Amino acid sequence: MLERIGAVGGVGAAYLAMEAMGLAIPTPAGAENFSLPPSSGNGRSVVILGAGIAGLVSAYELSRAGYRVTVLEARDRAGGRAWTVRNGTRIEQIGRPDQVASFSPGLYFNAGPARLPSTHRAILGYARKFGVRLEPFINVNRNAGWDFNGKVQPERRMVNDMRGHVGELLAKAIDHHALDQEMPKGELEMMRQFLGAWADLDEKGKYSPSGPSGFSIMGGGYNQAPVPLPPLGFKDLAPSRAIGLPYLFENIWDMQATMLQPVGGMDRIAHAFYEQVKPLVHLNSPVTAIRRVGDRVRIEHGPGKQITDADFAVVTLGSNLLEKIPNDFSPAKKAALKGIPYLPSVKVAFEAPRFWETDDNIFGGLAWTDRANENVIYPSHEIGAPKGVLVAAYVAGWTNQDNPQKFAGYSHQQRFQICRDSIEALHPGHSRLLSKPATVAWGLTPYSEGVGALWPDGPRAGPGGGSRGAQYVELLKPEGPIVFAGEHLSYQGLWQEGATLSAHEALKLVAAMAKSRTA
Amino acid sequence: MLERIGAVGGVGAAYLAMEAMGLAIPTPAGAENFSLPPSSGNGRSVVILGAGIAGLVSAYELSRAGYRVTVLEARDRAGGRAWTVRNGTRIEQIGRPDQVASFSPGLYFNAGPARLPSTHRAILGYARKFGVRLEPFINVNRNAGWDFNGKVQPERRMVNDMRGHVGELLAKAIDHHALDQEMPKGELEMMRQFLGAWADLDEKGKYSPSGPSGFSIMGGGYNQAPVPLPPLGFKDLAPSRAIGLPYLFENIWDMQATMLQPVGGMDRIAHAFYEQVKPLVHLNSPVTAIRRVGDRVRIEHGPGKQITDADFAVVTLGSNLLEKIPNDFSPAKKAALKGIPYLPSVKVAFEAPRFWETDDNIFGGLAWTDRANENVIYPSHEIGAPKGVLVAAYVAGWTNQDNPQKFAGYSHQQRFQICRDSIEALHPGHSRLLSKPATVAWGLTPYSEGVGALWPDGPRAGPGGGSRGAQYVELLKPEGPIVFAGEHLSYQGLWQEGATLSAHEALKLVAAMAKSRTA
Repeated sequence: MLERIGAVGGVGAAYLAMEAMGLAIPTPAGAENFSLPPSSGNGRSVVILGAGIAGLVSAYELSRAGYRVTVLEARDRAGGRAWTVRNGTRIEQIGRPDQVASFSPGLYFNAGPARLPSTHRAILGYARKFGVRLEPFINVNRNAGWDFNGKVQPERRMVNDMRGHVGELLAKAIDHHALDQEMPKGELEMMRQFLGAWADLDEKGKYSPSGPSGFSIMGGGYNQAPVPLPPLGFKDLAPSRAIGLPYLFENIWDMQATMLQPVGGMDRIAHAFYEQVKPLVHLNSPVTAIRRVGDRVRIEHGPGKQITDADFAVVTLGSNLLEKIPNDFSPAKKAALKGIPYLPSVKVAFEAPRFWETDDNIFGGLAWTDRANENVIYPSHEIGAPKGVLVAAYVAGWTNQDNPQKFAGYSHQQRFQICRDSIEALHPGHSRLLSKPATVAWGLTPYSEGVGALWPDGPRAGPGGGSRGAQYVELLKPEGPIVFAGEHLSYQGLWQEGATLSAHEALKLVAAMAKSRTA
Repeated sequence: MLERIGAVGGVGAAYLAMEAMGLAIPTPAGAENFSLPPSSGNGRSVVILGAGIAGLVSAYELSRAGYRVTVLEARDRAGGRAWTVRNGTRIEQIGRPDQVASFSPGLYFNAGPARLPSTHRAILGYARKFGVRLEPFINVNRNAGWDFNGKVQPERRMVNDMRGHVGELLAKAIDHHALDQEMPKGELEMMRQFLGAWADLDEKGKYSPSGPSGFSIMGGGYNQAPVPLPPLGFKDLAPSRAIGLPYLFENIWDMQATMLQPVGGMDRIAHAFYEQVKPLVHLNSPVTAIRRVGDRVRIEHGPGKQITDADFAVVTLGSNLLEKIPNDFSPAKKAALKGIPYLPSVKVAFEAPRFWETDDNIFGGLAWTDRANENVIYPSHEIGAPKGVLVAAYVAGWTNQDNPQKFAGYSHQQRFQICRDSIEALHPGHSRLLSKPATVAWGLTPYSEGVGALWPDGPRAGPGGGSRGAQYVELLKPEGPIVFAGEHLSYQGLWQEGATLSAHEALKLVAAMAKSRTA
């Protein structure tokens, strides 16, 4: 642990100094048990820039540990990208007309994060601590449709037929003794046996769908025996490279079952934090400059021209925003902040009667398409309710890497029409039931201007490990009394978990510096 | 449709006669739209044997269509195997001491069916019609454990490493040109490319886990880069044949996402039916003989010695029970009823604080083991509640075909101990938190004596189609005014959907006969 911290240089140095002084902060047993030593703040002041998850975690933990905390938030609400749109929510977009959502009471649209992996112990730990109720988020649904190259097939058929083809090919290779050198004979025999059942092969090793892919005639009462659908050919299963991600999606580490969501909207977690620290948070207070005065920090901010001085600062703004704010940072930091690309994700939501449930027996889950809307999210909650919010576009480059920027460039009406066409393809005759559209392009959202940092090794650099490059390493280093946090400074990028864990690291630095000064 | 019905002989004949007379019952557009022609009952009387799902569906539909309905139910409750055990529920088992469940208020244990596939339109249609609230049933959880050959691994690691091994082997076969004759070159290249991402292969085609299987060090804040777990060897992935089913389970047609459950317990559906037909249902009324008097039917039944005469009867008892009830059936029917094996499934449930959630981040889903308890079901509902009911054994031959009979033979205390040991292996240190055990062995449950018919082509004969044999075909045929229904007379065996669809078929026969007599 210390070794890894040490590798960052400046950051590790503070720790190592503490270690030498016998003052090291105890490592929490689990991320959900994080806390700073009680009273370690000793009345020192910290100004926190941003009341998104990283800022709220920081405010909560620092105030618990006896720091005097001020949070400056540019928007008129806390939560940052963890934003839930409800009836009456105003959606401002740079260079676009404002929208005011008009969903029916109780309906909502998670414009930012919509799911919580069950492995995200830190953010789930806070949800538990604050009594935020959780429910399943259905991330996979074999009834949902895949619409590629103009053809819609149920996911059931694509996924299971693909496994069948893979299994059949491998069985042939084994039967042809092409792999005799690759595996001990006994294991190869076991593999061959396994494939028979796993890939639905007949006794000759041919893929012969028996049900997993669905039926042309469903099994019924009495003598209505089921008739399985014939297998799709490989060309139908792989019409283009755009279809790659849908096959992988459910296997991605942080997309695997079980996924969760807060009951009532993702912002329930941010709001639970906010309830803890409300008096400390100054809304409508955009930061205009970040200065250092001696060993302290001075923040210039709105509304009007105000100044907040503090012993330390926790800066949780994305590098894309920070780059543009006048500051006293070192040349190295200024250079590191430059040009980190941000993913300009877009979502579009409609209210509608739940035709996907009543007519197509689709309860939650995702549809995929190579159309410009890319991904559709059916609501996982309130199953059977008369109406629901359908996320008819979640555009993040899932099926076309260049698409998000392009889709964000469309007018709202163009985006809505793309979604209507896609829903019509997936649910013929039903797109006319879509109403009350709302769209959020994160690249056009003031005080976000993107949904998350795209580091050199990709938006989900976590899996696979590896360095995120020199800029990342530099951004982890404090600038004197100023430390940095946010999802972009974690290996759980784009997730609230990453924001939380980066905040924990930043707070350890603050505590180390506070102790250092005390000593 | 008529052709398929015609194949059954006697049954089809009635339809064909109706067709010729222009009186055919209209085919419903979907299973959830089933109804008999209004007023077609015309005051004719029907006695229904059994108030399980098939009997309740029959009572509801027949009374809607103007029949005079009497339901005879042997137990003191409706619902049959769709049984939810709550605090105070008495569990009678043949040859065993009674148990009285003592769960905390609000907790329940679905001793029979626990899930509803989203493809089961008929039973879901009734749930919708009756306003039964539904919620997700989490049928897959990558955080859950697989305990085979004494080793516990997370499902995540087993499933994803297995896919990696399969993909690596196939990639090698393709790279060695062993499959050049099997697929066009272009398709083979696409397959090879697909495998790289799908199976997590490095540029040399070697399986190189990047995250789907989990991490030895999780990605964190700042410079805590994730370190993926090394791949398991094939021997660890396939320690014995017992592990086959867990790999397949999520692909089984009627186990695929999205699965649902009624809020508050599976019996909510049966009870919703019961509310519709309550005055027609006679509880504590076991049938002692099934007789024919002229073209009518006479049922001898309890309590005491009672007789109920009717124009028609719908008999929904399992063949295992029916075989033992004195009757006037034809020799062919008597022969067909003989010796159909019934699956003696067993479940064991405990109440406990939700340590699987708080300590292991397991929210719903299944664990699998080659121990005698076979399968563990974590509750999908009330996530975050302080306590829950853990189904610590669902024994149905999943991992050992001969196990159910054996497990049913153990004393209750022996079953509980097996479960405690299994939970201790999956959740070290936590089995001591299991309390208030309850167990239901369906083979020992009066008026069930098994959980469903095992037809020659298996308990899930649906997938794969094929005949269920001569006995099955004979059991579909009416005996004069007597028709038969139940999950065992469907190609959705062991499911409430099968009970529903078989009842629909039986009711069409009743309606056809009623019209025939009217004509």
